[in-house]
Amino acid sequence: MPTAVANKSIKPIAQGDLFSVPGLSGSALKTGVKESGDLDLALIVADEPMNVAAMFTKNAMAAAPVQLCREILKDTRQIKGIVVNSGNANALTGKRGAKDARRMLEETETAIAGKALVLSTGIIGVPLPIEKVTAGIKQAAQQLRPTCDDVAEAMLTTDTKKKTVAFEVEVEGQTYRVGGVAKGSGMIHPNMATMLAVVATDAPLAQETLQPVLKRAVDDSFHRISVDGDTSTNDAVVLMAKPPQSGSALSAEGTTLVDSAIGRVCRELARSIVCDAEGSTRVMDIEVIGAATIEDAERITESVAISSLVKTALAGANPNWGRIISAAGNSGVELSPEQITLELEGQTVFEKGEVIAADQSRLNEAFGQDRVRIRLTVGTGPVTRHMLASDLSKRYVEINSEYTT
Amino acid sequence: MPTAVANKSIKPIAQGDLFSVPGLSGSALKTGVKESGDLDLALIVADEPMNVAAMFTKNAMAAAPVQLCREILKDTRQIKGIVVNSGNANALTGKRGAKDARRMLEETETAIAGKALVLSTGIIGVPLPIEKVTAGIKQAAQQLRPTCDDVAEAMLTTDTKKKTVAFEVEVEGQTYRVGGVAKGSGMIHPNMATMLAVVATDAPLAQETLQPVLKRAVDDSFHRISVDGDTSTNDAVVLMAKPPQSGSALSAEGTTLVDSAIGRVCRELARSIVCDAEGSTRVMDIEVIGAATIEDAERITESVAISSLVKTALAGANPNWGRIISAAGNSGVELSPEQITLELEGQTVFEKGEVIAADQSRLNEAFGQDRVRIRLTVGTGPVTRHMLASDLSKRYVEINSEYTT
Repeated sequence: MPTAVANKSIKPIAQGDLFSVPGLSGSALKTGVKESGDLDLALIVADEPMNVAAMFTKNAMAAAPVQLCREILKDTRQIKGIVVNSGNANALTGKRGAKDARRMLEETETAIAGKALVLSTGIIGVPLPIEKVTAGIKQAAQQLRPTCDDVAEAMLTTDTKKKTVAFEVEVEGQTYRVGGVAKGSGMIHPNMATMLAVVATDAPLAQETLQPVLKRAVDDSFHRISVDGDTSTNDAVVLMAKPPQSGSALSAEGTTLVDSAIGRVCRELARSIVCDAEGSTRVMDIEVIGAATIEDAERITESVAISSLVKTALAGANPNWGRIISAAGNSGVELSPEQITLELEGQTVFEKGEVIAADQSRLNEAFGQDRVRIRLTVGTGPVTRHMLASDLSKRYVEINSEYTT
Repeated sequence: MPTAVANKSIKPIAQGDLFSVPGLSGSALKTGVKESGDLDLALIVADEPMNVAAMFTKNAMAAAPVQLCREILKDTRQIKGIVVNSGNANALTGKRGAKDARRMLEETETAIAGKALVLSTGIIGVPLPIEKVTAGIKQAAQQLRPTCDDVAEAMLTTDTKKKTVAFEVEVEGQTYRVGGVAKGSGMIHPNMATMLAVVATDAPLAQETLQPVLKRAVDDSFHRISVDGDTSTNDAVVLMAKPPQSGSALSAEGTTLVDSAIGRVCRELARSIVCDAEGSTRVMDIEVIGAATIEDAERITESVAISSLVKTALAGANPNWGRIISAAGNSGVELSPEQITLELEGQTVFEKGEVIAADQSRLNEAFGQDRVRIRLTVGTGPVTRHMLASDLSKRYVEINSEYTT
């Protein structure tokens, strides 16, 4: 489909959020799991069971709730709700953790009278105060509302901002909505991040199409951001869609439109995660052009994205571009300086092995922006890949050394 | 050879340095390449040509001097001297850089009347002020002294301490010496680091034995340290040894002893690099036990060593051990929590999938030490690997964001 058509048919909803999607309700409350006393439990419930697909962390130390969800999704195709707790990840918590995750599930399923999934985020290696959580679930189920700002807040840990967004999509005379909510601020790197995201739509999508739709959307969003190169034990993205009724199935073109809208929601949520990265002062948009293979392009892009030297230069608004090329050279991909060209915010600083005299004050200015575009041509093939990454600031270190998260 | 024998025969020389090795002289001076006006040029010269071996960065963007040295060592087996400049890496400097490196070489070879190698360290992507450097080389060659403290200083960039060490080794009634000098403080990671090192011995070693001796020593020292996960365009380690005269060749046992002494020198220099890591407040000694293969063991060790979350926890003296296991899980190696045991300074905090209640105040104390021992048993095989890594402090960010290095 031409981009113009998709752009015309898909529109952001001002102040939209997950609950812009009809048929969902939510509630959030304080259980005391977070010592700060902030909101730490959220419940998202659908009026009717929805088709579901999910993707989880590739970390070998997957948390108890992730293991439980994987097991559930082996033979469950529809769910009615999701419970999320923050403040405690229920990760590396052994047999007790597995039992606690299951109790959260059972409590939720009883309370909402339907199948559920369980997501947790917070500190690793500390047993979950399960009584507080189950009491919270009971109470939350009695306070469901068709809109609930607090859900986005109750999912946060070191995040400073709520992350929720919605788009409207026009398909064959019908208007559908796609909404999403996410959390994530540190431990963010492809595959996948200390992040949770729930995306839902009232567009009718068959269960068997959901997994490929979600994979495409995640590959192009949550897999293209990096905060600190770490990935977590709890990462999860869940997609829920209305099951098609007989006669309500979308055409191929309609499905593609909804697919695009889901992609937009995921990209917006991913962008808001990087922009709210722990201690971040600015982000870089890294584009690697002309790599030999997708794998090469990804390795080079990630090598720049995680380089502490590039990230600290970015934090200092210091256009010390030699570090960018050195990071690319450090990717393990066979590259030669003679084939490399580097542009910073449209200014060429290095071209095919030679330094290009650049206007230093313009470079300084470019590197001081909120978002810095880095374009690295490596000249070994046709593949392009991009990634959004945060800087590495003193504040990041402060957050991660002085607080136990 | 039993360790006891080696320990008895190999002794550190108090206040020893590279120039404890007989037959070497050095000089160092200020050429103005460093804007600070500090020492930035060093010359190391042997009375007679010495056998030589070297290892260089694996970064695809290897600097001009590295490329030149590689070319030289294709058919040169002996050198008489090494010139080192700091303040400018002569990296990513194109054709001019190659020409400048060659001019440094030629100027040095003329000045010392013998073959030489060229090492550079400092900022990337800035043309070398070659006239200053060549004038410096001429002058340095006229000021050679049999001891020269300033050589170690002239090699430094963001380092805060000189790094030089010497050992004495008793072999078959003869006393030989092994001395070394190094620089390195940031961009430090296996393969190899923004580091330079020169190691020399007056023990007679045939040229063909030098490369394997150096490789073993580097694998167990400079390849087992990590500061920030970056590797540089200029890393180089050079080993020089006295050529055996007829009848002076060492026995196999003697060679092994000298080999061990070279290993000790390299380990000491590597340790001093980590301890002087940019902004470092403490280091961690990571030991991974029971991995299936060497590759697995290295991946797990490195994953912990470079994790920003582990490194910031270390900076904050915060025994947030879940991050260590999560980093191991993030290595890509197949692991299961049920097989993992983690000890911090001898205290078990996690054993085969279960949290072990530890004495929090003892843990806090242990994590506040200058050197924290982390022992991770992964239970998938027989392989053990260790690594020394620095923390990630606010000062690291400050150094790398506010200064152009």
